[in-house]
Amino acid sequence: MKRQVYLEMKSLEQARDLFFSRINLEQIRAVECVSAEDSLGRTTSEAVFAKLSAPSFHSAAMDGIALRAERTYGTTERNPRVLSLEEDFAWINTGQPLPEQFDAVIMVEKLHEVDEEHVELRSPAHPWQNVRKVGEDIVATQLLFPKNHCIRPYDIGGLVSAGVFSVKVWKRPLVAIIPTGSELVSYNALSGTEGLSGNRLIEYNSHVLAALVREAGGIPLVYDIVPDSEEQIALTLKKAVESEAVTVIINAGSSSGSKDYTVHVIRDIGEVLVHGVAMMPGKPTILGMVNGKPVVGNPGYAVSSILSFEQFIKPLLHMLQGNHPPGRKTIKVWPTRDIPSKLGTEEFLRVSIGRVGERYVATPLERAAGSITTLIRAEGIIRIPALMEGVTQRSQVEAELLVDEHELEDTVVIIGSHDITIDILADEIRQRGYDIRVSSGNVGSLGGLIALKKETCHMAGSHLLDTETGEYNISYINKYLKGVGISVFNLVLRDQGLIIPKGNPKGIRGIEDLERQDITFVNRQAGSGTRILLDFRLRQLGIDPAHVRGYDHEEYTHMAVAVDVLSGAADCGLGIFAAARALDLDFIPVEREQYDLIIPSEIINQSKIQSVLDTIRSKNFRNRVTALGGYDPGNSGNLWKEIV
Amino acid sequence: MKRQVYLEMKSLEQARDLFFSRINLEQIRAVECVSAEDSLGRTTSEAVFAKLSAPSFHSAAMDGIALRAERTYGTTERNPRVLSLEEDFAWINTGQPLPEQFDAVIMVEKLHEVDEEHVELRSPAHPWQNVRKVGEDIVATQLLFPKNHCIRPYDIGGLVSAGVFSVKVWKRPLVAIIPTGSELVSYNALSGTEGLSGNRLIEYNSHVLAALVREAGGIPLVYDIVPDSEEQIALTLKKAVESEAVTVIINAGSSSGSKDYTVHVIRDIGEVLVHGVAMMPGKPTILGMVNGKPVVGNPGYAVSSILSFEQFIKPLLHMLQGNHPPGRKTIKVWPTRDIPSKLGTEEFLRVSIGRVGERYVATPLERAAGSITTLIRAEGIIRIPALMEGVTQRSQVEAELLVDEHELEDTVVIIGSHDITIDILADEIRQRGYDIRVSSGNVGSLGGLIALKKETCHMAGSHLLDTETGEYNISYINKYLKGVGISVFNLVLRDQGLIIPKGNPKGIRGIEDLERQDITFVNRQAGSGTRILLDFRLRQLGIDPAHVRGYDHEEYTHMAVAVDVLSGAADCGLGIFAAARALDLDFIPVEREQYDLIIPSEIINQSKIQSVLDTIRSKNFRNRVTALGGYDPGNSGNLWKEIV
Repeated sequence: MKRQVYLEMKSLEQARDLFFSRINLEQIRAVECVSAEDSLGRTTSEAVFAKLSAPSFHSAAMDGIALRAERTYGTTERNPRVLSLEEDFAWINTGQPLPEQFDAVIMVEKLHEVDEEHVELRSPAHPWQNVRKVGEDIVATQLLFPKNHCIRPYDIGGLVSAGVFSVKVWKRPLVAIIPTGSELVSYNALSGTEGLSGNRLIEYNSHVLAALVREAGGIPLVYDIVPDSEEQIALTLKKAVESEAVTVIINAGSSSGSKDYTVHVIRDIGEVLVHGVAMMPGKPTILGMVNGKPVVGNPGYAVSSILSFEQFIKPLLHMLQGNHPPGRKTIKVWPTRDIPSKLGTEEFLRVSIGRVGERYVATPLERAAGSITTLIRAEGIIRIPALMEGVTQRSQVEAELLVDEHELEDTVVIIGSHDITIDILADEIRQRGYDIRVSSGNVGSLGGLIALKKETCHMAGSHLLDTETGEYNISYINKYLKGVGISVFNLVLRDQGLIIPKGNPKGIRGIEDLERQDITFVNRQAGSGTRILLDFRLRQLGIDPAHVRGYDHEEYTHMAVAVDVLSGAADCGLGIFAAARALDLDFIPVEREQYDLIIPSEIINQSKIQSVLDTIRSKNFRNRVTALGGYDPGNSGNLWKEIV
Repeated sequence: MKRQVYLEMKSLEQARDLFFSRINLEQIRAVECVSAEDSLGRTTSEAVFAKLSAPSFHSAAMDGIALRAERTYGTTERNPRVLSLEEDFAWINTGQPLPEQFDAVIMVEKLHEVDEEHVELRSPAHPWQNVRKVGEDIVATQLLFPKNHCIRPYDIGGLVSAGVFSVKVWKRPLVAIIPTGSELVSYNALSGTEGLSGNRLIEYNSHVLAALVREAGGIPLVYDIVPDSEEQIALTLKKAVESEAVTVIINAGSSSGSKDYTVHVIRDIGEVLVHGVAMMPGKPTILGMVNGKPVVGNPGYAVSSILSFEQFIKPLLHMLQGNHPPGRKTIKVWPTRDIPSKLGTEEFLRVSIGRVGERYVATPLERAAGSITTLIRAEGIIRIPALMEGVTQRSQVEAELLVDEHELEDTVVIIGSHDITIDILADEIRQRGYDIRVSSGNVGSLGGLIALKKETCHMAGSHLLDTETGEYNISYINKYLKGVGISVFNLVLRDQGLIIPKGNPKGIRGIEDLERQDITFVNRQAGSGTRILLDFRLRQLGIDPAHVRGYDHEEYTHMAVAVDVLSGAADCGLGIFAAARALDLDFIPVEREQYDLIIPSEIINQSKIQSVLDTIRSKNFRNRVTALGGYDPGNSGNLWKEIV
């Protein structure tokens, strides 16, 4: 077994310095000549000078007549003058060349007593009025664009009118991307998803990297997947370095596992500058040089792969093209909770951001580097420097935006209990033409009420059963949101029950069986409505939670519970029918419960809140919810309580 | 002669309402299916749901060993346990499938006394630790993206890992572009610039429009240039409407001249909604519908054409693709002077913006709608609403940025006298690798000193001769910049002289001939160094300015003077040799004068100022300036006076 340790880990700044100081841009980049019409978005590799003047002849700047100005001197209201066609003037339109014998244009609106052959003037013209003179816009030989100018649409107009029909630009950098891993399979090799056998993973990092390369103005050159073989990786890397690619990305094998060959391969045929960068995600990054070309061993986890690309390859591609990565807009946000972070590592924390009242609030998403969906769902990234131990909810921090700022204005932040119909809601809002994003955070029903109190969300999703009154949510609102005017709208009624494996192999009958010692349960976190329901039922049945195996194993969503059942991590868990159905599991109904949206009354009339209500009252929403099974949308969107 | 008047002119808002309310998006847009890897930047036309769960099997989240957690219960520092390969554990790397018999992973760093066959543990594992469970990231059937979601690089990762290998997106809208005008010639039809005959104009609006269409996600379909013939324009428009294009742009003929057929053609085969929009530039815009497809008659002047496109076609293209035009960033700027604007017309004023001290200052550029270079040079646009008569230098106004904000930070604002070497400087700075833009405003030498006093520029370019002392600039600085610490650096010495037509047809010998009544002079504006020089020489020669023909005809730059001489608007003008040479005119030297950069001493040490000084001291700059002729860069960059 061959196992390596990281070389001395480098800080992100050190790593970037080491990497970029070794790259000789002039050695690896190239220039090409493109026609003016194909030059959009390209960057000039040298200054561009005008070849022609523009306009290239005198022309009319207005519609009207061309004439000699001196023939009009002395003309006034009281001393008008009649001019004759040909002899005195010619009709002329904007842009037409000025006949040689004339030196001025009078606009049509200033003419009197007009017929085809004659016009009457009541004021004089002066020479060169309303004439666009030769070279007025561009003079031959003048500088049009400096070196390293990125060509915009109107710049193309400048080029063509200055007679510059082709232009020298930096060549788009070709980037070799080598996916490695014996467990990987290309989706192009599959015939539909059925072709996927047991333990094979669909390779997708190369497609993401290719898109990132394109976005940075480069051209991706993606190799076939290379199995975990040192020889084959070395062979492919050599081929890539000898190709026209200016840089090579090997994904992945950059960590320190026994089959992580990337570092050996780069060291064998080139030089390793850095192995391991103190960033998270993105730690297992290798930076090296082979034959003067930068080679990056880029981590396997999707989010790590992307963040590593953004720190090293993206700036390189822009440098090669003489321009800058477009800066991400940053805004100040309030974290919705304290977020600790590892000292000594620069963390890139994905967050969901929405505007609540006057503040932007940021809810941290999961940190798993393998979870591409966290990046998809994130509206922003908070960078926590290596020398900080985290951020607190007591002060604002800076977040880099991954979406347009206006999308934050149009974001509805729903915090609280998790329900699948929130996803449906998010989509139906768009289907109805509203331009609204739904940002949802799963912190349980009680967490949602607390978020409302802290004003870090627009609405809370909640299904808290008052076991004394049998009523949902109201007593909790009275307790936790005292003094806040609240409107309670029903989202859905839904079936809670035991999620069990297909076919119910352990013959579970209901909550009463949770005492059985051959049964492992998976629980929801304290404060969740589902947990309250469970505890209530256990109490009714006189079951001591200490006797329930797995009672301490807590998950945060219905889906996570269902996944645990599917995977065999648990034999059952309490959750909603839709979660069981999504994973084709069986279900034992326990309770039809009420899931509400709790909204401060003072924002009810905001158009984005009305859009949410309008949507959940719509036929389409109800139909889709019904189709999921286990839901009753009969009261969806009904205001059933207003608390002053 | 057929001449039409504008239909009742509409305000921009009315015009937009009329236009967009008539368009039925669903009727003209279409959906297509693209593979995941080709979906970058496309917008979903329906919600996308996961087909597979991800991960699709349990896998290791760390490098280490896989084992059954219950075999480790009770393990402590004092009660370590030795495990054997195969029997108790398996080596595993990140991402590898978890063997069926195991349920946990211990990371390699936590192992003790390791050899290939055995490991020692000193703490227990719990079930499912360091395991990525099935569906942890994505659960089959979950919503991945709502309708109208624009796909980013990492979204492609989400698609592929969820088994969604192709996705339905809005088709890129095809836009027909019909260039019209008998005077136009396509650059593709020319063999170099020599092929251009007398009064032909090189057509470029179609290339600019095509690039704008591409930038908005559409596909341009550019027709051959159509001459000014009603029949031919109608024929081409019919063809375009019958094509797959979703909208048609006719450029131009949208004004009210006798050959402006566009409005007739659209009315004949369809409907004209608007003719004339109260915007400037962009007034002669026609909005119409033919067979349910929007048709825009777009103005001929380059800047008008672009602004009209941005108001009507650009939003349409984004609507068709279910997304929004990326918003332009706006900043607050201080105009460097009062700018009047026509009441009743919404003006789009191009401005040059730079940061001077803590303020962004905006200098208006020329308003000519035909001057594409004003848009190229502009850093921003100030929109002056129809109901305002202009903006004043006493209050901030909003400007939309055409460049990245960071470019403003890196802009050096040079206001004052015009000199061609400022262009060379702008380019050489880039050549030397500095990322600095030069924004220059031509207001004459005295205007430059006043701008310095008002703190609206970083440096002033000046060549003001003190006719008493024979010294340049110093006495003026003492007078106009009293109390400001100033450093004066030489930019160049340069030859001023009379610019005359090639061959000197009127036999002009020098300033003394300006009295001749057969000679028309073109003057520079009051306050310019050149004007001061002229007035000084006239005084020396005892010539009364009232006797100089054309003394009242003022231009603002050396080039404009040279253009007047080239065009025959004047027989001579005072200006620099380089301007004469650029237009291949003759030159009678009058004076070798000193052109300086006047810089407040307190900013001298700013890195961008140092970059300017470094550049003008460089060999390349001096060589290029020398090559222009009429310049002596012997003192370039020398500090020759510091005024406290």
